[in-house]
Amino acid sequence: MDQLLQSDERVDRIISQNLDIIQSPSVFSFSLDAILLADFAQVPKHHKGKIIDLCAGNGVIGLILSQKTKSPIIGIELQKRLANMAERSIQMNHLEPQVSIINGAIGDAADWIKKDSVDVVTCNPPYFAATEKSTRNPNQHLAIARHELHTNLDEVMKVTSGLLKMNGKAYFVHRPDRLLEILETMKANRLAPKKLRFVYPKIGKEANTILIEGIKDGKDTGFRVLPPLIVYDDGNQYLPEVSAMLFGKEND
Amino acid sequence: MDQLLQSDERVDRIISQNLDIIQSPSVFSFSLDAILLADFAQVPKHHKGKIIDLCAGNGVIGLILSQKTKSPIIGIELQKRLANMAERSIQMNHLEPQVSIINGAIGDAADWIKKDSVDVVTCNPPYFAATEKSTRNPNQHLAIARHELHTNLDEVMKVTSGLLKMNGKAYFVHRPDRLLEILETMKANRLAPKKLRFVYPKIGKEANTILIEGIKDGKDTGFRVLPPLIVYDDGNQYLPEVSAMLFGKEND
Repeated sequence: MDQLLQSDERVDRIISQNLDIIQSPSVFSFSLDAILLADFAQVPKHHKGKIIDLCAGNGVIGLILSQKTKSPIIGIELQKRLANMAERSIQMNHLEPQVSIINGAIGDAADWIKKDSVDVVTCNPPYFAATEKSTRNPNQHLAIARHELHTNLDEVMKVTSGLLKMNGKAYFVHRPDRLLEILETMKANRLAPKKLRFVYPKIGKEANTILIEGIKDGKDTGFRVLPPLIVYDDGNQYLPEVSAMLFGKEND
Repeated sequence: MDQLLQSDERVDRIISQNLDIIQSPSVFSFSLDAILLADFAQVPKHHKGKIIDLCAGNGVIGLILSQKTKSPIIGIELQKRLANMAERSIQMNHLEPQVSIINGAIGDAADWIKKDSVDVVTCNPPYFAATEKSTRNPNQHLAIARHELHTNLDEVMKVTSGLLKMNGKAYFVHRPDRLLEILETMKANRLAPKKLRFVYPKIGKEANTILIEGIKDGKDTGFRVLPPLIVYDDGNQYLPEVSAMLFGKEND
């Protein structure tokens, strides 16, 4: 297996899913947010659906979703190096041909995937506006994943909506400070927000992550705010829900 | 004190605030939501502000706010019977002239209160659209308080914005299923949403109440989702934060 890896890479294990995934601190490592999004997304169990993961990074979301569905999953990732890592992780887990990766810009998604044909789109996009320079990472790989240098909320929503069939579902993970913009951009792109879940690092802390479901051409009614997802207890241990996502359910 | 009361009325005590309040099961009793809103609202401590409580009901929010500020507080309540109850509660607590009640429609607020002059507006409005008939209470007093029969979100936001001075603050309590509409209506009326707090009945339950702060002509940035407010523990006992709002802080 080692010859599959470049020098700065390592293989991490997502214990709960029995998956191996190639990571690299110098180009991309998935965060808890990706795990939360993969858990939040509802996908059809059968094999007849079509699932697209935009801004796929090292492919972590597609890999996890493959454990919840028999439908094909296609990730789209702009950065060649990351798309290549994802491809090798797919092979390592023997998940081809269910899971595949396209190396390209999400704006070109319609070149490969038929419009109005997709059941579920997931996306863990860059969180920070390109104008927010203060926190920009000098490492270009990491900067592209974190800052809206090559895409932005408008494009993410437009591409998502274009791919989805009517009543298809979109799932996003993002930051609370952009919630208003996310809701507006979804609405402007025919994605009706349906479920919102707030992730709080601890019980007394402000939310630092949001999970949101939208339905293409969905009705305006029936919007819900799901139970709070609290990550750590007061002793900085994962609470059971998150622990199960990472390490599987305890047997007792 | 008894001769102050009509036959269907009783006096309840808000222990945490040392306040007595006239209630009536047949016309209006305040809910926990009013307590949560009064707690959530940030008011200037000094006496130079101006605070308006729209849809004041039996005046509970104004009464509680009087314990947090020296500024005058004016409630506006459409229903004569409720405004009268509020007035008697104000007298009972010797809070005149700091707290007063106007019996009238919020749409006429500008007849009594100068536009662009108010520091803080609070409002616990009717939650249900007039078209939602299923849950409408046959009792007209209760129906007006619960359903948008005589006002609606548009008017609440328009009146709030009209009263507030620039950078004045608005505080609302409402239901999560109307969050999207609330955010849109706020924005359409120059109220920038700034803080959102979700109230969950228990840790594993969906939010059933939202608290939201808006700032008139505020910037688009700096939106925050505050720590979750969880009402009951698994044994249906109030958790400490809510218990303190109702009964005061424990001494230990």
